[in-house]
Amino acid sequence: MFNWKFVFYVMSVLMIVESFFLLVSSAVALFYGDGDFNAFVQSAAISLAFGGVIYLFTCRCSREVGKREAFLVVSLVWVVFSIFGALPFLLGGYINGFTDAFFETISGFTTTGASIINDIEALPHGILFWRSLTHLLGGMGILVLTVAILPIFGFGVMSLFSAEAAGITTDKLHPRIKETAQRLWGIYMLLVALETIFLVLGEMDWFDAICHSFGTLASGGFSTKNASVANYSPYIQYVLIVFMFLAGTNFTLHYFAIKGRFKKIWSNVEFRVYVGLILLVASIITITLVYLDHGTFEKSFRDALFQVVSIITSTGFVSADYTLWHPYLLFLIFGLMFTGACVGSTSGGVKILRHLLLFKNSILEFKRMIHPSAVLPVRYNNEAVSQSIISKILAFLILYFMLFFIGCFAMSLVGLDFVSAMGAVATTMGGIGPGLGMVGPMNNFSLVPDSGKWILSFLMLLGRLELFTFLIIFTPSFWKNQ
Amino acid sequence: MFNWKFVFYVMSVLMIVESFFLLVSSAVALFYGDGDFNAFVQSAAISLAFGGVIYLFTCRCSREVGKREAFLVVSLVWVVFSIFGALPFLLGGYINGFTDAFFETISGFTTTGASIINDIEALPHGILFWRSLTHLLGGMGILVLTVAILPIFGFGVMSLFSAEAAGITTDKLHPRIKETAQRLWGIYMLLVALETIFLVLGEMDWFDAICHSFGTLASGGFSTKNASVANYSPYIQYVLIVFMFLAGTNFTLHYFAIKGRFKKIWSNVEFRVYVGLILLVASIITITLVYLDHGTFEKSFRDALFQVVSIITSTGFVSADYTLWHPYLLFLIFGLMFTGACVGSTSGGVKILRHLLLFKNSILEFKRMIHPSAVLPVRYNNEAVSQSIISKILAFLILYFMLFFIGCFAMSLVGLDFVSAMGAVATTMGGIGPGLGMVGPMNNFSLVPDSGKWILSFLMLLGRLELFTFLIIFTPSFWKNQ
Repeated sequence: MFNWKFVFYVMSVLMIVESFFLLVSSAVALFYGDGDFNAFVQSAAISLAFGGVIYLFTCRCSREVGKREAFLVVSLVWVVFSIFGALPFLLGGYINGFTDAFFETISGFTTTGASIINDIEALPHGILFWRSLTHLLGGMGILVLTVAILPIFGFGVMSLFSAEAAGITTDKLHPRIKETAQRLWGIYMLLVALETIFLVLGEMDWFDAICHSFGTLASGGFSTKNASVANYSPYIQYVLIVFMFLAGTNFTLHYFAIKGRFKKIWSNVEFRVYVGLILLVASIITITLVYLDHGTFEKSFRDALFQVVSIITSTGFVSADYTLWHPYLLFLIFGLMFTGACVGSTSGGVKILRHLLLFKNSILEFKRMIHPSAVLPVRYNNEAVSQSIISKILAFLILYFMLFFIGCFAMSLVGLDFVSAMGAVATTMGGIGPGLGMVGPMNNFSLVPDSGKWILSFLMLLGRLELFTFLIIFTPSFWKNQ
Repeated sequence: MFNWKFVFYVMSVLMIVESFFLLVSSAVALFYGDGDFNAFVQSAAISLAFGGVIYLFTCRCSREVGKREAFLVVSLVWVVFSIFGALPFLLGGYINGFTDAFFETISGFTTTGASIINDIEALPHGILFWRSLTHLLGGMGILVLTVAILPIFGFGVMSLFSAEAAGITTDKLHPRIKETAQRLWGIYMLLVALETIFLVLGEMDWFDAICHSFGTLASGGFSTKNASVANYSPYIQYVLIVFMFLAGTNFTLHYFAIKGRFKKIWSNVEFRVYVGLILLVASIITITLVYLDHGTFEKSFRDALFQVVSIITSTGFVSADYTLWHPYLLFLIFGLMFTGACVGSTSGGVKILRHLLLFKNSILEFKRMIHPSAVLPVRYNNEAVSQSIISKILAFLILYFMLFFIGCFAMSLVGLDFVSAMGAVATTMGGIGPGLGMVGPMNNFSLVPDSGKWILSFLMLLGRLELFTFLIIFTPSFWKNQ
């Protein structure tokens, strides 16, 4: 029997937790006194009331749960958080209509950073803080999910390697969920604190520094400024580049860094490809901007590196309008929307490790053609990767492209042009933020029709939960009694 | 040791064969007396001279050859045929420059049908006949290669099924290459003859009827008219629809039809998906054209069905400008450029069977998540397909998308805009002909820069030889002494 009571029980606990974070935002609102205090207190009260009532009815439920309850909980977390998280926008009248408020909130929790708000700077401090806080929570949530929880169930790309196989599970932070989560939380908050300090040293005010740090480490992308981070100083942009880069790194490697095991970091092949890819694409863009568009070297290099890191890590901060660059660079930027950064990071999208293994597999297919009888497994970190793992990753990527295409068709059906539709779908599935065309870096998602916003909200969740984890709850075999 | 002499020997034979077909075209030129007779006689002479000299030096070579020689021959056939096939265009002065002439010829032999000629109707009859003849030869070549030759080496999607596995090899026309080739040739020419007769019955003149039949059965797409087939009567367009459809069908099924085993045809799952997909997409387009664009039902239905069949079969005849249709239909058309028709047909691209197996595999991945220990193979025609075959197909599709992306980047690098670059690469890799934007159905490839034409020529060959068969000759392990 499917343990529905347990699912509701977990949701009720989450609503209570969320009411706590809404109260934290109300404190920020109270401190700045911009008039959004009541909206937060009301939202927290509603969230607490719903959570409390459901909790009373379900807290004595059986704790006997299987995989299926876990999958449903994982997907519902994001939806429930986004529904109640939309309340302050609605109750305070800062966003009109549930569609827009839900879009903005799920964009925050999935750390996408796609916005429908035209004048961000007109928002009160409490609301701005809440937007950035959704990023922080979403980023932490995905870390705990992918590094600590999913591998225990045998899912997610982090779990694809058995202890013997590839230095990831063996290097796992700690075998038990709770301790792993605590360590991740520690590293995560340490990086947030460090970035905040570095930003403040660059004369960003404390409030903006905290909000941008939340948005950076979660690879989210919500800014407190209308121009995103384009008007900040070069120093601040370089600080953001460094911390976006760190947010896109496997958090296991941060743990090694703290322990001083630097050799282990550089021996991680995915990390090396991550660094190499960023440098390669940033160089191509820099050269183009300097020689064809006659920019100065420093500004060209900074813009190139910033946008490459921002998009590959799926953060989505904007320092320059890449749609105005030489047309062929648009394909590079568009391509980066499909790479993603490292597994075990807060970044979204496909992830480099998957591409790396599939690339190695493609090369081997040629060798297999010449030597059909030879057994030629893909090797990663000097260990053989089983063909069933490769098949799973291949199936993931095919499904990703299939859903990308269906998403594009759906978005063009609601009225977006060819390029905008592709940009909107790629950027939401990848959890990035800015897209191409009418949803490009200098625009936002406010002009997308409501039906389109729901489709994109769905795609954000789909991408964030790496397709299978979310889609499985829509398959008939999931609901069959077992 | 790599048997180079044998490779040259086969090439010399092919040059001699080509000189024969050039002479056939010279006969057509002589009959119509448009002044292109000399160009053909000279071309035939050059081809024969080269072939003859090389033949004399190599005809006594060892016939001991392995897979590697076979792979190289398969790729070189298309290149050598296209080099000598470009001669009549150049010697007659009908196309200026080797780049354009080579593009037009390889587009013919790969049955793509992408053209750089602006005024097709100004060309003499001999040249028009030769253009269409390159289609006929290319289509026959690919049939013999994929149905008769590659399976013997254990390659190609037709060979993916062992005798036990899936009713394709067991239903193979005949075990031996020669007889299989003869039967294919018989069915192919029978269909060409039938179409010619039906076209003539619709008052198309004999010459045009023959040329269009060549272009249809090869799923090529070269027409003898500037407006492609848009100005022909509805009857003629329906005849073309039927024969394009037949060209995209697995030729094994035609053999069954001749033998009266109709039950075996409808039990072929790929064929049913092929029919279903055509009807589904054509219906969506028809409804849109009637209700949103206020077209009459018959014209809307005909245009929809014609373009869907023309693109899914990778023929590329044009009866209407699909880029002017409602924008969301563009995604459907673009999507069809990646489906292809049935395996064992003359159509290009990915092929439906691959999509079908991967779709089934994706569904199973969900079941495997819930039942990780269960063995759940993909089933096709009631037989289990091994996971290594699925992996091979997955690798094919990933490589296809990877090369598509690299191709798009390369085309944007030479100056095409985002949409045109994607259209140009999709249509050449899929062997279709018309693309999107500046290479759309009402334009041609004459405005593409020369470097872009070489890239597209490469992509045509790449797509025609189903990636691996061609790319393998560029891998270091291919050239390692064994």
